[in-house]
Formats: sequence, structure tokens, C-alpha cells
Amino acid sequence: MRAVVKPGPGPGMELRDVPVPVCGPTDVLIQVQAAGVCGTDLHIWEWDAWASGRLRPPVVIGHEFAGEITALGDEAAAEGLLAVGDLVTAEGHIVCGHCLQCRTGHAHLCTRTRIIGVDRDGAFADFIAMPASNVIKLEGIAVEIGAIMDPIGNAVHTVHAGDAVPGSTVFVLGCGPIGCFACGVAKAAGASLVVASDFNDMRLSLARGMGAQVTLNPGRDDVLVRVRELTGGDGADLVCEMSGHPAGHAQAFAAARLGGRVNLLGTPSRATEVDFARDVIFKGLTLYGVTGRKMYSTWHTMGRLLRAGQLDPRPVITHRFPLERIGDAIAVIKEGKAGKVILEIAS
Amino acid sequence: MRAVVKPGPGPGMELRDVPVPVCGPTDVLIQVQAAGVCGTDLHIWEWDAWASGRLRPPVVIGHEFAGEITALGDEAAAEGLLAVGDLVTAEGHIVCGHCLQCRTGHAHLCTRTRIIGVDRDGAFADFIAMPASNVIKLEGIAVEIGAIMDPIGNAVHTVHAGDAVPGSTVFVLGCGPIGCFACGVAKAAGASLVVASDFNDMRLSLARGMGAQVTLNPGRDDVLVRVRELTGGDGADLVCEMSGHPAGHAQAFAAARLGGRVNLLGTPSRATEVDFARDVIFKGLTLYGVTGRKMYSTWHTMGRLLRAGQLDPRPVITHRFPLERIGDAIAVIKEGKAGKVILEIAS
Amino acid sequence: MRAVVKPGPGPGMELRDVPVPVCGPTDVLIQVQAAGVCGTDLHIWEWDAWASGRLRPPVVIGHEFAGEITALGDEAAAEGLLAVGDLVTAEGHIVCGHCLQCRTGHAHLCTRTRIIGVDRDGAFADFIAMPASNVIKLEGIAVEIGAIMDPIGNAVHTVHAGDAVPGSTVFVLGCGPIGCFACGVAKAAGASLVVASDFNDMRLSLARGMGAQVTLNPGRDDVLVRVRELTGGDGADLVCEMSGHPAGHAQAFAAARLGGRVNLLGTPSRATEVDFARDVIFKGLTLYGVTGRKMYSTWHTMGRLLRAGQLDPRPVITHRFPLERIGDAIAVIKEGKAGKVILEIAS
Amino acid sequence: MRAVVKPGPGPGMELRDVPVPVCGPTDVLIQVQAAGVCGTDLHIWEWDAWASGRLRPPVVIGHEFAGEITALGDEAAAEGLLAVGDLVTAEGHIVCGHCLQCRTGHAHLCTRTRIIGVDRDGAFADFIAMPASNVIKLEGIAVEIGAIMDPIGNAVHTVHAGDAVPGSTVFVLGCGPIGCFACGVAKAAGASLVVASDFNDMRLSLARGMGAQVTLNPGRDDVLVRVRELTGGDGADLVCEMSGHPAGHAQAFAAARLGGRVNLLGTPSRATEVDFARDVIFKGLTLYGVTGRKMYSTWHTMGRLLRAGQLDPRPVITHRFPLERIGDAIAVIKEGKAGKVILEIAS
Repeated sequence: MRAVVKPGPGPGMELRDVPVPVCGPTDVLIQVQAAGVCGTDLHIWEWDAWASGRLRPPVVIGHEFAGEITALGDEAAAEGLLAVGDLVTAEGHIVCGHCLQCRTGHAHLCTRTRIIGVDRDGAFADFIAMPASNVIKLEGIAVEIGAIMDPIGNAVHTVHAGDAVPGSTVFVLGCGPIGCFACGVAKAAGASLVVASDFNDMRLSLARGMGAQVTLNPGRDDVLVRVRELTGGDGADLVCEMSGHPAGHAQAFAAARLGGRVNLLGTPSRATEVDFARDVIFKGLTLYGVTGRKMYSTWHTMGRLLRAGQLDPRPVITHRFPLERIGDAIAVIKEGKAGKVILEIAS
Repeated sequence: MRAVVKPGPGPGMELRDVPVPVCGPTDVLIQVQAAGVCGTDLHIWEWDAWASGRLRPPVVIGHEFAGEITALGDEAAAEGLLAVGDLVTAEGHIVCGHCLQCRTGHAHLCTRTRIIGVDRDGAFADFIAMPASNVIKLEGIAVEIGAIMDPIGNAVHTVHAGDAVPGSTVFVLGCGPIGCFACGVAKAAGASLVVASDFNDMRLSLARGMGAQVTLNPGRDDVLVRVRELTGGDGADLVCEMSGHPAGHAQAFAAARLGGRVNLLGTPSRATEVDFARDVIFKGLTLYGVTGRKMYSTWHTMGRLLRAGQLDPRPVITHRFPLERIGDAIAVIKEGKAGKVILEIAS
Repeated sequence: MRAVVKPGPGPGMELRDVPVPVCGPTDVLIQVQAAGVCGTDLHIWEWDAWASGRLRPPVVIGHEFAGEITALGDEAAAEGLLAVGDLVTAEGHIVCGHCLQCRTGHAHLCTRTRIIGVDRDGAFADFIAMPASNVIKLEGIAVEIGAIMDPIGNAVHTVHAGDAVPGSTVFVLGCGPIGCFACGVAKAAGASLVVASDFNDMRLSLARGMGAQVTLNPGRDDVLVRVRELTGGDGADLVCEMSGHPAGHAQAFAAARLGGRVNLLGTPSRATEVDFARDVIFKGLTLYGVTGRKMYSTWHTMGRLLRAGQLDPRPVITHRFPLERIGDAIAVIKEGKAGKVILEIAS
Repeated sequence: MRAVVKPGPGPGMELRDVPVPVCGPTDVLIQVQAAGVCGTDLHIWEWDAWASGRLRPPVVIGHEFAGEITALGDEAAAEGLLAVGDLVTAEGHIVCGHCLQCRTGHAHLCTRTRIIGVDRDGAFADFIAMPASNVIKLEGIAVEIGAIMDPIGNAVHTVHAGDAVPGSTVFVLGCGPIGCFACGVAKAAGASLVVASDFNDMRLSLARGMGAQVTLNPGRDDVLVRVRELTGGDGADLVCEMSGHPAGHAQAFAAARLGGRVNLLGTPSRATEVDFARDVIFKGLTLYGVTGRKMYSTWHTMGRLLRAGQLDPRPVITHRFPLERIGDAIAVIKEGKAGKVILEIAS
């Protein structure tokens, strides 16, 4: 079968012909129809410090996907819950199920996590084998949307971690695809006001398409002054830090109201200076680090919002490429001209 | 009446003769029997940057106290809930009751907060007038304990903010009086393991007296290695950062387990460098800034623990002085030789 | 001034000329512009067992209202937070502020609660005096809506008590005005599906106007079968029991999914038979009894939803009468032909 | 191997020689050392309506046990987390992992649950095969205690469902083994006061041994009057209904304070009459139906409390029998003379 492979240390990827993966007794085999390209895939392409420290090539890349079940292992078949022909996506974090985190509702933080397309073969390929327990049926969700439920789930996790969203004011700082999804999730969840900021006007336009009522460009707008004006002087109830820029953190803390919450998803590449006394303690803030998706309450909430039509992520999709044009897909992301980029693999 | 007064800008305080405060219609007048001396009082004595930016002398100092009601304003009397002769303490943060914070369970973060002994006359005096709504009846709690329910409440707030304490492992970083109280609160609340650290062995001894099962001195012990050993390699479920030392924050984040929680009470005097990606986001940590006491759920929980004898803060009290020896009280705190210091004003 | 008064034991009310109420030092005087008529007022008119056991006539009736501040007591004025000319409504439950419930976030359950229009003079009058702390500024909410924020608040409390609403399926059982409001609140709060039931088709029409996607009439529909069909066989995540009919309870428990929640607002007039083993324990249900409005988080959330235009309760208003036609207002409610009924008192 | 078998419809059980169970690829085989006898086993012995409607004999009885791993299936072995020689117990509810309940933290309510000793072969035998994912390592917990972690877990689930336990007043209504365990759990979790009631003085004595500070016998004491006296007139913060007696429910609701909580574990055999208006709605109560143990947060908390020595359930164990004396074990339970009864199967 075809697969996008990181063949060894160093930049780039290759489209190769590799064997169809083995489907173990508790696995299902899925024919991939569409896959999402993520910033993580760019890091892997470029072979940055994180990638070179973590990957053990050769490995098939890709962790966001949807497709159709074509075979089931014996144990998976015996459960009777999945069947050949089911359209599905999957949680790409494969966890141990036994550690303190797995046993207390924090499986997304399992220390034994193996991520598809990073720690084991991934989804930029004609087929992928996945543990049945990680598989999610689409049940009416379009395959193209199913292919990006991984990053939409990041946004659902970020927006829903903490206090009730209905009636709240939400400030989304950073409008990459997950930031844009977060605008839509906040709106669907009953936020009274969604404000988004980014230096990139194209991204702000995508954020508006997802429901942000006000968009701010720090190149032109005094973001903190505007957030306070828009919130009657209070600051935002919830700040979603999606930029990963070290400067974003200070702004995130300053934009939150007293007693408010800052959920941090963007991962800065270096240390950040924080005045904890002024910005966190005297403000009574709660900060929360977002990793992955809650297994599986995030998936449940996301499925509900998507199937009811409350959340439609498609305005964020800007590019679609066939599998062999993975290089072009990576390039448009690198140039900052893309929202979400999809690989169309089969139909 | 006698009162310890900050007479004007600059270091020091004076014992003066001042008028008994006016008891307004919604106030009660309290004869102070005992008062606690706080690190804040040391800042005011020394007239540091915070103190000179906030206080408007002359002002009577002191915000931790207990005593006996000697008079009630008309409205307070009409309520019929407090009476002359009642032994009481009081929440020293006087809040507006109308702002977003006051209306949503975060009154401890009211922007219009006026603190006794800081923003208005305080409790190092023979009498203090307090709004009836801030007053808490002791109902069996010893006056000396009542006099320090303000800082005990800080500890109750810190330990109880977040996940359930029973069965958890708690690491208290910094064993000043509030850190020591936090050890006792965690123990009373069913923590399975309480570990405390401080550079000062006298303080570690007080922490042990309050129930810390293991105490660590960073001057001798590799604190992180020891916390991990003691928690089966996981790290602590809850870290209470009570030191306020900028280096304490990095250690606090590192000592917390994946998915754990760090409640921050100590206020560092300068900015802290944080590697948010490694230490907060990939660990899925929750951080929370602790200010004051929740009004009044913290007081309710604290009253229950004290009246049931589950929590006895007295091992932390190391010094008792009469009101006129305020200078000596400040001195023992400054020298780092004290646990909690009490002023005995009347009996 | 004019006031609708229950003059003594027995059915009926009278429009009388009475003195303008005294405005105490912590009170504000409000000129009433509009008031809502509630089922409770019908009970008082009819002088049923509850009314005769609780009211001590003569008393001015009415507890839902909005109007303009015309005077402030000295203490209320000194706070500087309310002013003559402010358009306001108020929480009609006046509580002690000192009991266990008031001190732990359950002030709506204060045992010393005095309700306006029931335990003290109410709002079907030209003026009412209210404690400043109970007053809520409208700040852009229409007076007519302000006049019914008391029952809208019941709906907000009912829908928001418990798990997160976004993405949930909500079944509202009973479509009186508060049930209809609950449909709108659930929709605004991001529910994926809102189903409502009532025997009265006019009420079902109002529920649809508030956002119920499916309405069921137990006279024609097999409600339980339909709720299960609509929820993929699971049952509803949240059931709001607003009917108060004893038969409603069994249906509410049966309609909830395993692990779901039933919030009970309707007050049945007699005991209900419950098979706790089958319907509550083996289902892992949570039940919650709803009284009043949370003080004041319910008001905060409600204000946000109303000001942002996410919730518009006006489709439920079916009748408007001048104050002197209180008898007609009561009559349309009794006949079951009304949604919400408003008294227009001044403008 | 030896096994206690329900051979067919009708009362009684038989000790039989049966084949050692097959250990599937994801299973482990456990040599049972000790097992707990439960009220459910009595129902099965007596073949009551519930038992005859649910069991499909022949089936090996017993769902509470601990023992030693003697073999692992291939998949279980490959995980590398369990090994031959490990002392373990297990969650006896085998769930699907895919349904709404399993995916949202309510796996204990999975509709596809198969219970060992009820729906499939159980633990009153020399060996049992269990899915590896259900197995819990004892890691220092005594085997005899491990054998009864199933019912201790019921108590942990009951006491911990809801508000924070530290500082609370807990009333345990019904002192069978799980009620007695609940007294110990509440005490370990920092309850300020634990009150227990039962008609059986022997059981009250066991409850005192587990930490109940006050025990009440409804045959002698006016339970409601006493609970109110002991709680300053308020009623209990948390009531644990463990009796399953229909009359227990009315008493449970009446004993709870305004805004309090009643967690219901005892399963009444017939419908209960409830005055919801007076006893639930106007009191603002929360009721919660307890089934099984939360998977696996209950096990995690329980393990912590047991390993730290905060909870010692052994005072509740009153009888120990060898496997072949299952009839005597059932008899002492039926006669109401037993606390917890253990079968000693191997050592």
C-alpha cells in the first residue's frame, strides 16, 4: 500500500510502498479515506529538536484520519460493536489503561502513551490498524470532518475544561486551526461573547467564519484594552491560549478576569516569564494545561455538537491535496497561508 | 484606647492612644482579646514597596484577631443574630457584595475589597468596629485560635481548592505558619501522605507537629527525588506552594504528578521563569492562585475542623507578647525564629 | 399608592389605597413599572392550604417585578452602587446571610427567608422597598423582561444545576411558563436536543417558540418511547420536571438515561410512589430539588444570556393587563389559557 | 477444581468439581485465596424473584475475592503490567467500554455489564479467569482485605459521591457490612461527625468499631430528633442510605440538612412514598443512586486509604469459613448475626 514515511533522521518525507499493517486480535483494520495535516507533521518534516528526540524512523506519519473498517481481529469481532463497512475515526493516543492517570480519568496523560504517526505507524497511508477500543464510529458525521476530529477535540477539551461555558465571555488567543475550532466550540456551547486575536488577518477571517464576534489583530489593536472594553471592564471569563507564543501567556493572564480561567494549549518553544503574584495569585486565576482529548468524554461532547449541526468545522478547511502531494500540504502550512489542510486518500 | 499605629511613611509603628472606633448601624464593636501578627505586618513595619504603594497613614495595624462583642449598631442588633458578650473573630476583607466576583462566589476577589489594618483601621487595638456580616462566632473555639483563623483560613482555602483531598498525597512547599497549618489541614482532610519542605529546620519541626509525615530540607535533601520516591514515582497529587520563592514554582510544578494540581499562595517578589510546555501543558497540570478565604465556605469548613478537634493549630504558636511589645513580635518574625506570633491584648 | 392586597383569610384580592412603603437605611424604593403574575399568586387568590398556612394578611401580593429606583436609604446611598433612575429588578427572597446555608453558597435555602408578596409586602403596587443587596440592575434588559426574571431564573437554575449542558439532550416535562423558559435556556446553553411535553397544545406551541425541537402530548404520544427514539435508545441526559404532577416523577425518572440527572422544580401536591431500586439506584441517577434562584450566580448567568440576546422570553408572554385587572389576570391563568401574564403598572 | 455452583432453579448451592476456567488472550487466571460472601449471594441461595429472573444456572457463585495470578493470556502478558505471582483482586463488573456510559465516566452503569458470580462464573472456586483490565494489584493490602474490596468500594463510592467530605457531618442509615465500611470511610475522609443507625445492636457495635462516634437504635432512639441535636439543628450534610428499607428513605430525606445530599445504596424491595415537595424540592436536596464502584477512581481512592492505614475494614469481619462450609456462611448472614463473612479458600 502507499504510505508517507519518514525514512530516517533529517528533513522531508517519502511516499513509499509498504506492507498493509497486521491487524492484531483486538485491532480493526481501517482503509483511510481522508487525513488531516497537523503542525506536528511539519515539525516531523523539518526534523526539529522535538522530532529528532522522539521519532525512531522509519515510521508512517499522520495521526488525524477517518475511513472505513475493512477487517477486524478475533477479539474485536467477538465484541460485536464494530463491523466491516463502519465509517470511523480514532483517538490516536494509545494508552496503557492501568496507570494512575488511566485509572482516574486522565488517560490522556498516560505515561505509556504511544501516538500513531509519531511512536508507531500512522494514517497517511491506505490502511491503518487501530485497537478497537480507540475507534469512534462517525454515525452521520462526514468523513472529511471525521478526519479532523483529533484537533477539533483539542478545541473541545480546551473550551470545556473548567467552569460552565454558557453565558461566559471567551477570548481565543491564536487562530490556527485549533483556535478557530475553539471559537466555534465556544459559540456552540452558549458563550455570550467570543473574541479572537491573531497577527494573521486570513486566520482572523476564518475565526469569524467559525463564530468569533470580534477579532483583534495585535499589530493594529490594543488587545488588552479592547478585551476589557468588550467585557465591561472585567476581562474574559475564559482565555484559551492557542498561540504557543511566550508573549501570549502574559497577555492571556492579563486578559482574564479576576477569578477567571486560562486554558493553555499552545506549546511555547522556550520559557516564559510570569509575574505570579500580580497575574495569577492576586487575580485568583486558574490555569490548566491541555493535552490531547479526554478519553472519551471529549469525543462524546464533540460527536453531539457535530451531529446536531451546532458545530461545523468546514469553514476552517482551506486546502485539500491527494496523498502524493504531502509536500505541498506541508508547504502551505509552513507559509502560514492555510487553515486546516486535508489529504484526500480514498473515497 | 490603645492602638498600634503606622503614623506616616517610613519604617516602624507606634503604640498610641486613639478614640474608640464609631460603631455604624450595620456594625458591631468588638473588644479585641488576642491578635495574630502576620508577614504582612512585617512588610508594613518595614515600609516596603508594596506597603508604601498601598497604605495611607495614619492607620491602625492588624487584621487577625478575636474578641468579645461589646456593642451593636441598630441594624445589626435588629437582625438578632449577634449579641453583646459573643466571642467572635471576623473576615478582614470587607467587600462590596455587588460586583461580578461578589455575585458569583468569588467575593474574596472583589475589586472594592478594603482590608482591615491595611486600607482601614485594624485590630492591634483595644477595640475594632466590624460589619456584622463579616463577623464569625467562635462557638467553642478558643480565643487564641480564633485570633489566627485568618491565616488558618488561607491554608484551608489552599488545601481544599480543587480535587478531593481524602486519599491524596500532598506536598507543602514552604513551612511558614500558613504552610504548617496546611500540613494540619491536609491531614485532617484525609490526605494519605503529607510531605513538607523548608530550609529552616525549626519550621520543619513545627510542620511535623502539625502532621507532616515526611519533612525535607532542600539544603540537605534532593526534594524532587524524594517526593517521587515517596509517591511511587508519580509525584504529588496536590502541591501547595507556600514559600513565595521564585525557585519554588519550578520545583512545585516538577513535584506535581501528571494531571495534578499546584495551588499557589506564596507571593514571589519578582517574575518567575516557567517552561509551560514541559511543566504545565504536557503534564496536564492545574494551577490556582489563592487569595484570602472563600466567603464563607472556607470559614465554615475551618470551623467544623477546629470545633471537632480534627485540626489544632496551637503547635505552630511559638511566641506570645503583650500589645506594647509589637516591636519584639515583629523582630522574632523577621529573624525567622518564629512560627505564629500572638499579641495578648485583653482577657 | 395603589396595591393589590390580600385583605384577610379567604379567596380573592382587593385593589386598595395604601401608604408608600418606608425605605429603611439599607433599602431602595422602587416605582414598579411591570410585574409578573405567578401560579403562587393563584394559590394565594384561592386561599388554598399552603396559602392559609403561610400568609398573615393583610399583605400586598406580587413577587415578580421591575421598575425604577426613586429613593435610597442612607447606607444604600453611601455604597454608591445604585442611584435614583436606575432600572432594576430584585431577588424576592430576603435571606439572613448568617446561617449555614447562607454561608455555604445555598442562600436560596436560608431558613429565615422572607419572600416578598408572601411573608412581607410585595410588588403588585406602585412602589416597593427592597434591600439594596437584593437589587439587580437591568442594564439594557427590557423592563417587561426584567419583570419576569424571577421565574426565568427558576428555569436557569433548573437547567444549569449539574453537568454541563452543551451537547446534552434535555427533556422538559411540563410547559407552564417556567417549563417554556427552560426550553429556551437549554437551547441557549448549547443543548443538542430539547424535547418538551405537556397535555396542553397551546403550551406546546409556546415551548416550540422558545426552541423545543420536538414537542410531545401524552394524550397522543407515547412519551417514553419517543424520548428513547429521539436519544438513540439512551434516554435524556437531563430531565427537567416542571409539571409538579405526581405521575410526572415516574415518567421523569424513566425518561432519564443511565447516569443522567432529573432536576425537580414542579411541586406535587401529594406524595409520589417511587421504585428507587429500579428507577434511581440501578440507573445511577442524580435528582436535585430546585428552589428559587442561586444567589446570585443564577442572576449572573441569566443576565448574560438575556443581554447577549441568546435568550428571549417574550414568546411566552401571552397576556398583559393593567394593575386593576388583577382578577382577569388570575382568571386566564386558572383557565390554563395563558403563558406568562404581565401586569403593566407604570411606564 | 472445587467450585460453589448454583446447579439449577431453586434454593441452595452445591460444592462441585468443575474444570479450571479457560484463560483467554486478554485474561489472567487467578488462584482464589479468599472470598467475601455478600447479601447478593444470599438472594441467589434463596432463589428470590431477582435471582430467578437474572441467573442462568449452572453458574459458579461469588464476586468478592482476592488471590494470586497463576497464568496470563498472550495479550495480557504482552502488556507487561501483570505477572504470575502477583497478589490481586478485581472489579467484578465486566463492561463493554464502548457505550455512552463507558465513554463518559459512568462505566459502572454500562448496559452490557456482566457480573461475575451472577452473569458468568464467579469466585467461590479454586480458580477464576478475569480480563486483565479488571484486575487490581494488592501491592501491600492484605489478601483478606483484598477479598472484600468490592463492598468496601461500594462504601467509598457512596461516601465520596458529591460534595467534599472533610468537615462534614455524615449519617449512615443501616449498618450492614457496607454501612459499617461507610462509617470508616467517612472518618478516614475527614468527616467531623459520623452517626450511624440500625435496629441491630451487634451491627451498631461494629459501626462504632469502624469510627461512628454516635450510634442510634430506632427501637430506642428518636433518630431524627437525635440527628438534629447532634448537628446543631441543621441535619446531616450527607446521609448514606444503606438499609434498603422503604421507611429508610423518608428518614434519610428528613435527616438531611437543607441543601444536603442523600446517597442511596440500599435497594428497597418495593416502592417508596415520597413527599417530593416537602422533603426534596423545598429542601434543595440532591439524591444519588449508587451502583457498583466508579471504574476506577473508586478503586484508586480505596487503595490509597487502605495502604496508608487510614481505613481498616477488619473489625467488620466476624466469621471465616472454609469453602465447603458455604451453607454455614449463608446461614449466619441470614440470621443477622454476622458482619462480613469470609471464605478461606487457599493460602
